[in-house]
Amino acid sequence: MGSAGEKSRFKMTKERHTGTFEKALREGKVDKDFVPLCKYISKTKNYFTASSCAGRIALVALDKGETKKESAFYRKWHRTVAEKEVIGAVKEFSGKVLWFKQESLILHLGTDTLENAKKILVACEKAGIKRAGIKVAKEGRFIVEIIGTQTINTPVKEDGKIQADENFLNYLVKKANEKFSKNLKVLKKLEKEARKNLK
Amino acid sequence: MGSAGEKSRFKMTKERHTGTFEKALREGKVDKDFVPLCKYISKTKNYFTASSCAGRIALVALDKGETKKESAFYRKWHRTVAEKEVIGAVKEFSGKVLWFKQESLILHLGTDTLENAKKILVACEKAGIKRAGIKVAKEGRFIVEIIGTQTINTPVKEDGKIQADENFLNYLVKKANEKFSKNLKVLKKLEKEARKNLK
Repeated sequence: MGSAGEKSRFKMTKERHTGTFEKALREGKVDKDFVPLCKYISKTKNYFTASSCAGRIALVALDKGETKKESAFYRKWHRTVAEKEVIGAVKEFSGKVLWFKQESLILHLGTDTLENAKKILVACEKAGIKRAGIKVAKEGRFIVEIIGTQTINTPVKEDGKIQADENFLNYLVKKANEKFSKNLKVLKKLEKEARKNLK
Repeated sequence: MGSAGEKSRFKMTKERHTGTFEKALREGKVDKDFVPLCKYISKTKNYFTASSCAGRIALVALDKGETKKESAFYRKWHRTVAEKEVIGAVKEFSGKVLWFKQESLILHLGTDTLENAKKILVACEKAGIKRAGIKVAKEGRFIVEIIGTQTINTPVKEDGKIQADENFLNYLVKKANEKFSKNLKVLKKLEKEARKNLK
């Protein structure tokens, strides 16, 4: 499967993505929790990382329509957070709607053939990640999207009114920090399975 | 692509899934909002629905570990909800942790070839659904998972203590009902695109 032309095209694609990854790494733009997995992937023959976020706790501002297009990170933390930094930010917010989010890992892995893409799905299943699927399937270029499920997603302030009181915000922070740690464990499992299954 | 054996195997798979759908339909077990789309799919030549939920508002009970395995629907509604039914249920709950969830549509569509699976991804993209991917890719059997993104997901009660006060629960219900309606609009768009792209 795959002509010589497709193979060299894949090699170029992988080289380009690896270059982007290494530049981001030098500039400190890769989430530190993702570095070991991404480094391993960049050294495989058949795989590359197209984009990744290891997970984060965030406050997201939305306009009236609440569409993704209008959304903007008001605050984001790639780590566990303190109650006071979240409560302070919520108090300061003066936009339309503010959502509190604990977002799980998201990763796009690329490969050359359907068979190799299926190996990514197997690695995810073994790591206990249910949300993984092939998003792009072209000759010589397959992209698998991998999303963890450790999430919290709730609006907390609207039209200047804090809907979630301080007690509840404190509780949300505690739960988000717990989920953040669980998410990192899932990431470690994924790394282990990637090392076993993706070459 | 696909041998005669694979084709007749696909035909049998489609017939089996169509039979399951029609039985569920007769027994009133298919979400009414999904009926037009599922009926259309069952009449196509190349596609079948493997499982579906049009979207719901739910209270989910979790045990200490908070794993999916332990989770159970404490209440679920395939419709918009009234504040008092949610608040009443939260008050009554006596388990470990209770989560309030607005869940978006989830649909598994099956088909016979990679080319036909890609047509599902195109239909989803056109309908504005970002979470869609090929989960199963076997000779003669491809399954695409489609998940909407209109969600709310937050813990509200733990160890007998209601963390979200009545004001906040009322607010959550209002937001969940809005999301529920938005989700149905996405479902209508998906149906329109399915009729155009899936035959």
